[in-house]
Amino acid sequence: MSTESAHPKGKSRTQHFLAEKAEVDQAAIAPLPASRKVYIEGSRPDIRVPMREISQSPTTTSAGLEENPPLLVYDTSGPYTDPEASIDIRRGLPELRRRWIDQRDDCEWLDDLSSEYGRRRANDPQLAPLRFELKRTPRRAKPGRNVTQLHYARQGIITPEMEFIALRENQRRLAIRSKVSEEELAHQHPGESFGASILEDITPEFVRAEVARGRAIIPANVNHPELEPMIIGRNFLVKINGNLGNSALSSSIEEEVDKMTWGIRWGADTIMDLSTGKNIHETREWIIRNSPVPIGTVPIYQALEKVAGVAENLTWELFRDTLIEQAEQGVDYFTLHAGVLLRYVPLTAKRTTGIVSRGGSIMAKWCLAHHRENFLYTHFDEICEIMKAYDVSFSLGDGLRPGSIRDANDEAQFAELETLGELTRIAWKHDVQVMIEGPGHVPMQLIKENMDKQLECCDEAPFYTLGPLVTDIAPGYDHITSGIGAAQIGWYGCAMLCYVTPKEHLGLPDKDDVKTGIITYKIAAHAADLAKGHPGAQRRDNALSKARFEFRWEDQFNLGLDPDTARAFHDETLPKDSAKVAHFCSMCGPKFCSMKITQEVRDRFGDGSGIEALPEEAVEGMRGQAERFREEGGELYREV
Amino acid sequence: MSTESAHPKGKSRTQHFLAEKAEVDQAAIAPLPASRKVYIEGSRPDIRVPMREISQSPTTTSAGLEENPPLLVYDTSGPYTDPEASIDIRRGLPELRRRWIDQRDDCEWLDDLSSEYGRRRANDPQLAPLRFELKRTPRRAKPGRNVTQLHYARQGIITPEMEFIALRENQRRLAIRSKVSEEELAHQHPGESFGASILEDITPEFVRAEVARGRAIIPANVNHPELEPMIIGRNFLVKINGNLGNSALSSSIEEEVDKMTWGIRWGADTIMDLSTGKNIHETREWIIRNSPVPIGTVPIYQALEKVAGVAENLTWELFRDTLIEQAEQGVDYFTLHAGVLLRYVPLTAKRTTGIVSRGGSIMAKWCLAHHRENFLYTHFDEICEIMKAYDVSFSLGDGLRPGSIRDANDEAQFAELETLGELTRIAWKHDVQVMIEGPGHVPMQLIKENMDKQLECCDEAPFYTLGPLVTDIAPGYDHITSGIGAAQIGWYGCAMLCYVTPKEHLGLPDKDDVKTGIITYKIAAHAADLAKGHPGAQRRDNALSKARFEFRWEDQFNLGLDPDTARAFHDETLPKDSAKVAHFCSMCGPKFCSMKITQEVRDRFGDGSGIEALPEEAVEGMRGQAERFREEGGELYREV
Repeated sequence: MSTESAHPKGKSRTQHFLAEKAEVDQAAIAPLPASRKVYIEGSRPDIRVPMREISQSPTTTSAGLEENPPLLVYDTSGPYTDPEASIDIRRGLPELRRRWIDQRDDCEWLDDLSSEYGRRRANDPQLAPLRFELKRTPRRAKPGRNVTQLHYARQGIITPEMEFIALRENQRRLAIRSKVSEEELAHQHPGESFGASILEDITPEFVRAEVARGRAIIPANVNHPELEPMIIGRNFLVKINGNLGNSALSSSIEEEVDKMTWGIRWGADTIMDLSTGKNIHETREWIIRNSPVPIGTVPIYQALEKVAGVAENLTWELFRDTLIEQAEQGVDYFTLHAGVLLRYVPLTAKRTTGIVSRGGSIMAKWCLAHHRENFLYTHFDEICEIMKAYDVSFSLGDGLRPGSIRDANDEAQFAELETLGELTRIAWKHDVQVMIEGPGHVPMQLIKENMDKQLECCDEAPFYTLGPLVTDIAPGYDHITSGIGAAQIGWYGCAMLCYVTPKEHLGLPDKDDVKTGIITYKIAAHAADLAKGHPGAQRRDNALSKARFEFRWEDQFNLGLDPDTARAFHDETLPKDSAKVAHFCSMCGPKFCSMKITQEVRDRFGDGSGIEALPEEAVEGMRGQAERFREEGGELYREV
Repeated sequence: MSTESAHPKGKSRTQHFLAEKAEVDQAAIAPLPASRKVYIEGSRPDIRVPMREISQSPTTTSAGLEENPPLLVYDTSGPYTDPEASIDIRRGLPELRRRWIDQRDDCEWLDDLSSEYGRRRANDPQLAPLRFELKRTPRRAKPGRNVTQLHYARQGIITPEMEFIALRENQRRLAIRSKVSEEELAHQHPGESFGASILEDITPEFVRAEVARGRAIIPANVNHPELEPMIIGRNFLVKINGNLGNSALSSSIEEEVDKMTWGIRWGADTIMDLSTGKNIHETREWIIRNSPVPIGTVPIYQALEKVAGVAENLTWELFRDTLIEQAEQGVDYFTLHAGVLLRYVPLTAKRTTGIVSRGGSIMAKWCLAHHRENFLYTHFDEICEIMKAYDVSFSLGDGLRPGSIRDANDEAQFAELETLGELTRIAWKHDVQVMIEGPGHVPMQLIKENMDKQLECCDEAPFYTLGPLVTDIAPGYDHITSGIGAAQIGWYGCAMLCYVTPKEHLGLPDKDDVKTGIITYKIAAHAADLAKGHPGAQRRDNALSKARFEFRWEDQFNLGLDPDTARAFHDETLPKDSAKVAHFCSMCGPKFCSMKITQEVRDRFGDGSGIEALPEEAVEGMRGQAERFREEGGELYREV
């Protein structure tokens, strides 16, 4: 968490990126402590769902060593943390989904890129040193075919992607595999899910039904076969997104790829590439080819770059070409601010912070310059035709989201939300998958209204918010101001939470900021899972607390979201190895450690019987009890 | 936020503390940027309430410079940030309340310390190099008198402390002094306070009524005249507590005093000294004499030290002497685990993390060793007699709070809460002020139950929680896991939030950790104030967002909770001074900055009129509009 590294540590990984020398970031492939990659097989050998298995040391009891079974946890880190995998970012990841897409036989290989811009970039010799060398051209739906997961779901077909996801999401089954007893599972605090359908057993059929209903999406472009499929929906685990991307003022291709491998190591479920600087196309290729998680973009950024930053010069034709260019690279979801309508723009005139969405402000400027309706809105059906040919999902942008507490829940924001609902229904007519973006800056008492309105306006399409920040007064800490709001809206039903780093409002985040943002949002998402009562979600908390209580320090660190930091913090004040079996830490020392004292009580009252208030005549008996307690060693808790 | 400094930076401030050379920490007396100390006078010249006034630069408009009035904010930093004050920690702070206590004429000066232990320490020549040199002996109530603020409140008397507090708490009046318009004030989002009584205007009479009702407390020992009075109660601003204190394994007197001056600089409303190591008595003297905020302790810690860590050897007599010793130093509130009853201890036998409260585990051990009821419970009336002689408030400890998600809201926890309710009513019979401590580790869906049960069991006595942490899985980040829960329970009615640092569960926090914990909890408390709808609370958010929108970077930093960090983060990627007037930051750069683009829209639609969808025949007219827009400069927002 050092503020020293404005840019990655170690060797300078700057503008002089050379494709032929590109290497994966060593920090991202270092093994996670006490962890190994395991695969859960599905109904066919090519459905292998990666999990992380965290080993624990046994508990020392008077009867000997008692095993603590390894804990299986959801794993977004891809092949990077699999020592069996051979990683070469110049070749990209294995094409996990290749055969599944082949077998659907609904796509054809193109002879060349469809995008004019894409062809220009591919043929420009000056870009050769930067370029990811592809050995293939893209795929696209055969004429008349629709290749989206939604389309298959509505036909009652369970795709391999859906089965993969069911295995990934079924926490109850993972708990059982981790030798969590039925009693223990039943002990988890019941949740309050505000009307969601949180099932005991997530099945492939349930996945299909949720996708068919539009209540969940599986972002999975046919041109992103390296993807480990995942689902975004209210009735599944709450997901988080991490952002990366260069700007005109900093960062290189290598730094951006490093942020991706680093972000997924710590738990990012999807990554958005928000580059606005140089070589956006090439940067994105490197990222997608090497990403096991879905990649999202905001195509208007690159479109704006193409017109040298002059929003008025954007055209539908240029934008269309950009969509195709990006879809053929394999982008899994597009943020499109199609709800920023001309007539809504004046509603922002009296706001404290106007339009804070980059894409929203670009579209607003275009609308006013031309005095015409937003071309994303007017060409929406055509956009759907493109999306369904590649299975790119919509992330309908909240261009008019509030950028300050004062602007929260205003007319502009909700007017746009209504239009996003309208667009959702159009997209669904095309069987194109949709999720809805949300705020922003919202004080706590107004958060639930956002969730409820979105469920209603958009027919329960998944909600994907940025925080929200619950106060504006803490620049430098907006991962926290927004983590508070994100945990709440996740609990109320938000399906994915877009992370915020400490650098929000101040500058471009570096790798440390990316990690801090990710861990904060994993906390928010998991807190929401617990509050909703996802079966099995509590097992990690239980395992860690048990390790803590038993002074299995290494296990406590390893089970946490960030073992490195936990271990380093502990070692700051108690670095000796003996401290790792010490029955105390520096907070209280040996005499005062409540856990140490508590351990000494257990034997005395193992059966949990109560002690009623004793009448006088029993005082003699009590004295005898006290003597016996002292004879037995006078400790509160002893081994059973 | 560096992890390098396990101990304070700069000159070594370690065990070789010498009273005669003691100096205040320079970092704590450095002026806050763009800030000056102002005083609001009350009905008499010796009631002067300190506030921090943050200046802003003007907004540049086409009509010239538009003033942004300075913002007045609540200030806990004491005389340390008043350049007019002369600070010498060897002399302590000015005795602000001296005359008020004198005029009540309800106390007498003692000839010597009442505590046997206290006298022994005072007469021990070996301690002379460490000792704070007091020029006075303590005060105590005259025989038959009760000197608590509650006692006065119930007699219908408004003390100077109450008037001081009313001036401090009245955010609406501060807003008006900060030239916030009535319209602006009315614009704040209405809150949801779950039945609290959040008033527009906080008056001294309202303060008195809340204290009389027991719904708020003013921790203010007659032996702590240096105190700037504050109030803890549901209908006032949510407060935060910062902890400090040495342990057997680290820290010195100087480091602890530094943590206090540092903690109050960043916003701690009270400080608890949780020392368990060496020279607890002397350390505490230095802290109280130099603290403008109330000081709390857990007397059982020092009592345990006196019996060399053997809990069974604790006696009521030793403990009684410790209470008097600490009361005569000026401790403002005591945490007492009087609700850990013998018969409750077995209820913790099957818990995952047993008893995590240090004080609770010590009392549990004592109970079992002697097979007798908790002596704090059995001697409670005698304790009240001591408390009312000095006006020490109770913080009734939650010795059986849950230390893991799994243990949340269990039988042990709520059994103790019932007993705390019983003890509250006994304390109130003595007119002794009471607040109730709370958890701990609680998943989000169970937080409100805690608040509701406490309000009911304890007749709305103020609630003072530790977090709660909403998940166990992130050691190293427990300021965040608990900040999420704290914001929520603050919203539901919790009056004070005890901070948690990143080192929680891992080791003793250093100064950086203290600051991080404080800022996190200021965020949680302020988010709760906004959610409850405290009039005027939103002005700081509004001012900061306005500064942000207008690219007044320095103002944005200065208005935030941590200007240093905000400025440093910004400067990491855009350090040049020109960047401070730049209409963008490194996140997006000049072309993509949404705020920059948005600024350009304002002129066009300043009156906020809508643009309806125009029929075909108006298209010609629209083209004319577009031409005119381009002629006028083609910018979205312009100066009005």
